[in-house]
Amino acid sequence: MTEQNPFNSTADILSWLRERNNEVQVTIRKIRFSELKQWHFAPDTGNLVHDSGKFFSIEGIHVKTNWGAVNEWTQPIINQPEIGYLGIITKIFDGVLYFLMQAKVEPGNINNVQISPTLQATKSNYTQVHKGGKSLYLEYFINQSEHTVLLDQLQSEQGARFLKKRNRNIILHVEDEIPVHDDFCWMTLGQIKKLIHTDNTVNMDTRTVISGISYGNFQSDVADFYNSVSPDTGKENTFSKGLLKSLIDCENSLYSFDDILSWLTQLKCEYELVTDHVPLKYVTGWSRNDYEIYDEVQKYFKVIAVDVGISSREVQQWTQPLIEPAQEGICAFIVKEINGIYHFLIQAKVECGNMDILEIAPTVQCMTGNYKNTSKGNLPFLEYVLTCSPDQVCYSCYQSEEGGRFYQEQNKNVVIEAGNSFPVDIPNNYNWLTLNQLLAFLKFNNFLNIQARSLVSSLIFCTHEPG
Amino acid sequence: MTEQNPFNSTADILSWLRERNNEVQVTIRKIRFSELKQWHFAPDTGNLVHDSGKFFSIEGIHVKTNWGAVNEWTQPIINQPEIGYLGIITKIFDGVLYFLMQAKVEPGNINNVQISPTLQATKSNYTQVHKGGKSLYLEYFINQSEHTVLLDQLQSEQGARFLKKRNRNIILHVEDEIPVHDDFCWMTLGQIKKLIHTDNTVNMDTRTVISGISYGNFQSDVADFYNSVSPDTGKENTFSKGLLKSLIDCENSLYSFDDILSWLTQLKCEYELVTDHVPLKYVTGWSRNDYEIYDEVQKYFKVIAVDVGISSREVQQWTQPLIEPAQEGICAFIVKEINGIYHFLIQAKVECGNMDILEIAPTVQCMTGNYKNTSKGNLPFLEYVLTCSPDQVCYSCYQSEEGGRFYQEQNKNVVIEAGNSFPVDIPNNYNWLTLNQLLAFLKFNNFLNIQARSLVSSLIFCTHEPG
Repeated sequence: MTEQNPFNSTADILSWLRERNNEVQVTIRKIRFSELKQWHFAPDTGNLVHDSGKFFSIEGIHVKTNWGAVNEWTQPIINQPEIGYLGIITKIFDGVLYFLMQAKVEPGNINNVQISPTLQATKSNYTQVHKGGKSLYLEYFINQSEHTVLLDQLQSEQGARFLKKRNRNIILHVEDEIPVHDDFCWMTLGQIKKLIHTDNTVNMDTRTVISGISYGNFQSDVADFYNSVSPDTGKENTFSKGLLKSLIDCENSLYSFDDILSWLTQLKCEYELVTDHVPLKYVTGWSRNDYEIYDEVQKYFKVIAVDVGISSREVQQWTQPLIEPAQEGICAFIVKEINGIYHFLIQAKVECGNMDILEIAPTVQCMTGNYKNTSKGNLPFLEYVLTCSPDQVCYSCYQSEEGGRFYQEQNKNVVIEAGNSFPVDIPNNYNWLTLNQLLAFLKFNNFLNIQARSLVSSLIFCTHEPG
Repeated sequence: MTEQNPFNSTADILSWLRERNNEVQVTIRKIRFSELKQWHFAPDTGNLVHDSGKFFSIEGIHVKTNWGAVNEWTQPIINQPEIGYLGIITKIFDGVLYFLMQAKVEPGNINNVQISPTLQATKSNYTQVHKGGKSLYLEYFINQSEHTVLLDQLQSEQGARFLKKRNRNIILHVEDEIPVHDDFCWMTLGQIKKLIHTDNTVNMDTRTVISGISYGNFQSDVADFYNSVSPDTGKENTFSKGLLKSLIDCENSLYSFDDILSWLTQLKCEYELVTDHVPLKYVTGWSRNDYEIYDEVQKYFKVIAVDVGISSREVQQWTQPLIEPAQEGICAFIVKEINGIYHFLIQAKVECGNMDILEIAPTVQCMTGNYKNTSKGNLPFLEYVLTCSPDQVCYSCYQSEEGGRFYQEQNKNVVIEAGNSFPVDIPNNYNWLTLNQLLAFLKFNNFLNIQARSLVSSLIFCTHEPG
């Protein structure tokens, strides 16, 4: 092997990110819809579309469901039927698996540069509809059969905002010598997970890809991941050891895997979800002015237009629509020891853009309305999460949504350990799963939603006593 | 336990079926569409709908795909968005698990009575839209939490004819004393499987439910199932022992489970399938006369109307549309010993009504056009299946499609054992799976199509030397 071991400390990586941030020139400016280039409102539907018919469009949908308090509505939604790549290249140096990550700017990022997968490209990107440069490292994914595939899954995005969108989450193990281009850097899985414990540092695309790692293919390397990074504090360390047990123990779960499948089947039969396309101009409760398409109660989101200048991108200047959230949200898992192993309190949640009615979501997922003002008891477990004692908090960070579609959106990600007094009996659309069971479902399409996967990506398993 | 062991020999069951057939009065008469009661063509769309808006409707779809030779078309399709029950009650007598089965007539059945699940009901049925009697045994399924759920899955129906239709396949284990109503009979799983080795005796709904049994929950009872019925001949016996090994062995598969997931992910990214509703009256290449909606090339199917009289049903007389196939089809699995265990040659098949682009289908699935006239080489492996030597045939029967929707449709179901000279290298959308892997995918929604599941239901595993 002629390449050098690329080890950088986590502090090195953070200062490399800061450097990248200082070097790149970014200007994001809100503009009138009429200033959008290559985007227009289709005269017959009022849908906001790209002139090529590619990329994505903002359309209307009509939703009917028997889930929740509101049973029928119309809303704008992002339609992006293409399946894109979220791909990471890995390589072993001196017995440790390294991930080739990118310091990437997306127009909606709150802090410009975030750690992104090696390749992050829609089909329109990599087939060069925008006439920009070729996506770096694309050829490894096109020729995947020459490498070892460690993970390869179709995973959903936000069901409240995307219509049945999915991405191909893929991790390759490559043995070739690989050029490291500007803005790219090798890091271990342990380091990526550690960086997820810093606000808005690891982007959503990275988080979804690494959430899918089931440690079957990776098992022999797990120890090496964590040789580089271990939990710092006593509390983190105890929690990480508990997580490892919940990952490995297949015997002591409260419910069997088949029980949980049956529970999901029953709920999918009980809850109906019918969505139909409607022209955006016929969506009710939403208005449009020169700058925004907004919901009249200001609880959900706005569609805006931006002019983007990013010096480090294939195309350095463009305009595009983005989604701006009405406010900050919160996603939280409550975890409790049952039968001696950690169980995650999950809910089965219906969202209008879901492919198969419902997906497994965190205990609390509150992205619409201001959760700080939500009246107590309206959302199960929200009050518990907001009022628990600080020593129950195992993880708490702000995490960004995908900056290619969402404007400066960050949501609080929290994992709380519930004590013995927390009830095991819960409402019918909630359930207790071990980490082993969560990861088994994650292997298959459309079982865990993006918010649940983001939280899973933050979990650090301790495999040894820290030195 | 006060109930008597209900054991009947398989010969007893067959003569009970013959009796039922003699007793029930069935008249099925093709009628004009204008003679349909409570069904009409909607004036704006030309769709054939029930006056209640419930049950099912015949609508049009427009299909675009990059799979196969024809990339764009319109066709009629059955739209039945409700999820119905296909439910079987089981109970242990003297240590052996028995299944409560029904001798049921459906209007499309070629031979009237077939063995059906305990409960077979759409939501419109069991919510009594048709104002008929209450479905027998429904209360056990409504109150499933009082019993043990052995299996509970959402499974697809024919993707070429149904738009994203699924049923809830469910098996309950009940400990209560259960009344056995007229037309119902207890039988073992071994007996049901044995009866699947007789033409058109076990209906499609029964076959799909029992195909999902993974033998995890049932394992301790497997021996007992087969104590009652064992393969008769030397060839069957050898094949059954090989199947058991392919069910149990998790170590020697040609590909890992993750390899196969990755292969499916890749194909789902490669193949596009976009379906849109179109009014039935705008479907091209199809015509309507007083009696039929038919495709002008007569390769696919017809929509017809029938007047039904069945003396044993909740409602004894009604009219309804049915689908009549253009000809008999064939579904075949080729099985080959690789690494010392049987592997099934499967294909990933795109069908227009699929929920998620493609599903796992048998090696050969030929339901359109007359397979006997299909030119050699046009359909991979068809010639091999049609010309193999008789001693390679492990299973061959005619099996009926669902008689509630399909008129006298039977297709040949075949399992062929390929010899050493059969190539392991196969086209890209084909793959080799062990029975263990097939059944693992079968647990999840929308992985194995109904034709593959029908064939899986026929497989008998030998657990002991026949006495």
